[in-house]
Amino acid sequence: MKAVAGVDIGGTSTQVALFADDLTVVDRLEVPTPAAAGGAAMVGAALDAVRLLLDRTDVRLLGVGVGAAGVVDAREGRILVASDSFRNWAGFAVTAAFEEALGVPAFLDNDVNAFLRGEAAAGAVAGEPDVLGMTLGTGVGGALWLDGALYGGPHGAAGEIGHVPGFGDLPCTCGGRGHLETLASGRAIATRYGERTGRELSAREVAEASDPDALAVYEDAGAAVARALLVTVGLLDVTTVVIGGGVSRAWPLLEPSILRALATEPPVSGHPVRVVPSLLGGDAVAVGAAARVRAELGV
Amino acid sequence: MKAVAGVDIGGTSTQVALFADDLTVVDRLEVPTPAAAGGAAMVGAALDAVRLLLDRTDVRLLGVGVGAAGVVDAREGRILVASDSFRNWAGFAVTAAFEEALGVPAFLDNDVNAFLRGEAAAGAVAGEPDVLGMTLGTGVGGALWLDGALYGGPHGAAGEIGHVPGFGDLPCTCGGRGHLETLASGRAIATRYGERTGRELSAREVAEASDPDALAVYEDAGAAVARALLVTVGLLDVTTVVIGGGVSRAWPLLEPSILRALATEPPVSGHPVRVVPSLLGGDAVAVGAAARVRAELGV
Repeated sequence: MKAVAGVDIGGTSTQVALFADDLTVVDRLEVPTPAAAGGAAMVGAALDAVRLLLDRTDVRLLGVGVGAAGVVDAREGRILVASDSFRNWAGFAVTAAFEEALGVPAFLDNDVNAFLRGEAAAGAVAGEPDVLGMTLGTGVGGALWLDGALYGGPHGAAGEIGHVPGFGDLPCTCGGRGHLETLASGRAIATRYGERTGRELSAREVAEASDPDALAVYEDAGAAVARALLVTVGLLDVTTVVIGGGVSRAWPLLEPSILRALATEPPVSGHPVRVVPSLLGGDAVAVGAAARVRAELGV
Repeated sequence: MKAVAGVDIGGTSTQVALFADDLTVVDRLEVPTPAAAGGAAMVGAALDAVRLLLDRTDVRLLGVGVGAAGVVDAREGRILVASDSFRNWAGFAVTAAFEEALGVPAFLDNDVNAFLRGEAAAGAVAGEPDVLGMTLGTGVGGALWLDGALYGGPHGAAGEIGHVPGFGDLPCTCGGRGHLETLASGRAIATRYGERTGRELSAREVAEASDPDALAVYEDAGAAVARALLVTVGLLDVTTVVIGGGVSRAWPLLEPSILRALATEPPVSGHPVRVVPSLLGGDAVAVGAAARVRAELGV
């Protein structure tokens, strides 16, 4: 049996899975990401996991897809800009390392792009041609699926809905002000809740608290997400929005204010827009990375 | 000599021109638009102008391109939604009428799309592949030129930068609130100036006045345009923005606040963005309509 590997290199853990033709999981492993030990150690940990999966399954590996945070050169398979928590990662030639070790073609995507590719290939927006993907994680990421393909723009920088103006006036981690990330990221939800209550909870704990302050913070996050969605729908006429990342697990807290905002100000085109949470959850990046391999190799 | 005709059907006047291979003007005419007399009269007036130009020049007509305000079906060549000032225009089969009368292929575009196509074919952004076009006229229009082609989206409704949220809280003509059009359209500039001074001037007269209130109103318009531009650059990674419409003629009043806003908050991608005024001015729509004909016919 032939399979492709999907690798999701996250800040704390790395997911590795082997996928069959239809992108169902053949086998999987989760290992810690040795982010402080540098790029070679991170790729080494992922390679060990791939080899272990190959040893214990009876598949022939066709290729490897990798999704990683930060700015990546998806053509050259190299990390361009990485967060400070990853040592010796910016500049690392990821696909070359995988290809040399495994002898099969490898491909690299930004993790938000891989998330959207996964949801479009086998998730919440399977088969839909025009989709905005948003990830509400520690930060806020965005990606565009236009006319059935990822849209990167001339520098591969398209989709940055987390860092455009028009969302109030709070200072953003990027140095700007009034970005979606100041209201809808996990970090923002924890901070906004702390400002109201003096309590230090994670975004997940805020959702579990579900007290009036928690509801108000998630309400503001949902309204900001709706605004981002209306901007994108107005500019690009996309029909569907899929929302992932840890914050999206509190969907019952987010969805009402998103839908309320959409009802108050529907898209100017008059066409309705569908908003759905991620279907693949923590698997989305690995599925998308594997889908990229299948698309590139035509298998 | 072979030529194509470009027709720009505006609310008060219709521009008709014959264009050579290189999109230079062979001859041109401007006639009043009989908007109150209905679609047949409007197309009739344009046809009379085309025939007059053909009679007095020695060209063979290859095709006709038409740019018109409103929502159009660019594939079927039909007006879908028109403003109230145009009688019997919504639903009108524009290209069929031109083709029947002239015996050559005809094509219809929304005027904002035609504007951008014109500037990309032979104007301020000639040869550039990734451009946002904005028209600051009575209202605010937008269009996208992505990877060297107009981007319409699944319903042909893309580019509506004039009517997305994030630009304050003033009521918009469309029924929404806080849209770019409430700050940067000709109507908005006249209204905002009237609110400050009690004087009823047109946007052009406000620009000519150039008193402190006029400068403040244009400053706000420029800052809003810069915000729209940053949103689009963040989402689509476009490299260039071209701005047309009557309000853009006051470029010396708009440009400083646009550049100031861009310097204060540069695009998150780190790539610079170039902002230029229309080069073709009142000809842009006719040039773009003619460029569409050349592209469709491959001549």
